[in-house]
Amino acid sequence: MLDDVALDTLFRAARTHNGWTSKPVTEETLRELYELVKMGPTSANSSPARFVFLMSSDSREKLRPALSEGNLAKTMSAPVTVIVAYDPFFYEHLPKLFPHADARAWFAGNRALAEETAFRNGTLQGAYLIMAARALGFDTGAMSGFDRATVDRTFFDENGWKSNFLVNIGEGDRAALFPRSPRLAFDDACMVL
Amino acid sequence: MLDDVALDTLFRAARTHNGWTSKPVTEETLRELYELVKMGPTSANSSPARFVFLMSSDSREKLRPALSEGNLAKTMSAPVTVIVAYDPFFYEHLPKLFPHADARAWFAGNRALAEETAFRNGTLQGAYLIMAARALGFDTGAMSGFDRATVDRTFFDENGWKSNFLVNIGEGDRAALFPRSPRLAFDDACMVL
Repeated sequence: MLDDVALDTLFRAARTHNGWTSKPVTEETLRELYELVKMGPTSANSSPARFVFLMSSDSREKLRPALSEGNLAKTMSAPVTVIVAYDPFFYEHLPKLFPHADARAWFAGNRALAEETAFRNGTLQGAYLIMAARALGFDTGAMSGFDRATVDRTFFDENGWKSNFLVNIGEGDRAALFPRSPRLAFDDACMVL
Repeated sequence: MLDDVALDTLFRAARTHNGWTSKPVTEETLRELYELVKMGPTSANSSPARFVFLMSSDSREKLRPALSEGNLAKTMSAPVTVIVAYDPFFYEHLPKLFPHADARAWFAGNRALAEETAFRNGTLQGAYLIMAARALGFDTGAMSGFDRATVDRTFFDENGWKSNFLVNIGEGDRAALFPRSPRLAFDDACMVL
């Protein structure tokens, strides 16, 4: 079991950040981050998520037209913005990722199942990214307020990946935090049967 | 930053389990688990996930007809099986959960956006559940091999929740593990721009 400091880092004291210090995030850190994220479980080890790490000003400027107004300033100033995407044709990798069954065949002829699987499992991997970034001592700010079609046209015209959501990563500026919002009580969100 | 033991517990050494010891999981543990899960970030604090903890044999027998053959034995023998679901009408709670804007209005008239938001964010919360269970020292086994329509009809006929995926929780039997499958390399799943 993790200790209280670790549980605070991952869940209790962690916050969605809206402002960032100038402390940089290196490409080495992003590789370390992916080494954790890739180990998280996905259906049939399908691993459909793709991660585009926007580090340069140029890449951030390409993202700008797709951002909602409320997500603009914080994203342009974040050390890294990650486009959490997925590959709709993830199943082409299954002969390597899940070699003990013909898992490719489950998806190759069933577009609805492939899309649902890519979205669900790509999203799980996006959550692992948030948790892994926090585990490595960084702060995060996830966003779905952006135009997915514009991002896909701008970044994925060639490879056909689909954007899912965005995550800013860096050292958060605690002075820019909003007060914490309430959560649903156990009895409003859970049943024990 | 978390230490290596914690990173191993969450990511590196953690495995999807297929067999379970007789060590029980208590309702107190499930409440402790939810207290962590509920703190994870969701879009506009929408918190659409709902968690149904199947503890009794009766509730597990109700699930049985919906399970795929490969998920049957391990699920019937797990100390707890969680139906990770979402409430398609999650936005009715937004006046409480996101009081500083009329966020309810963003979703109430837009069924496609509400469904996408519920599925994406309910899935994120399902990943937080997996990570939180591991953080509390338990093992997990997530599954999407089941009939969602049957589960919805069996468990959610009255409240209208929708099933998303299942997670077995308990103390895993390491003797029942399969060898670990390979993962995609950084350069196959990531871009740095």
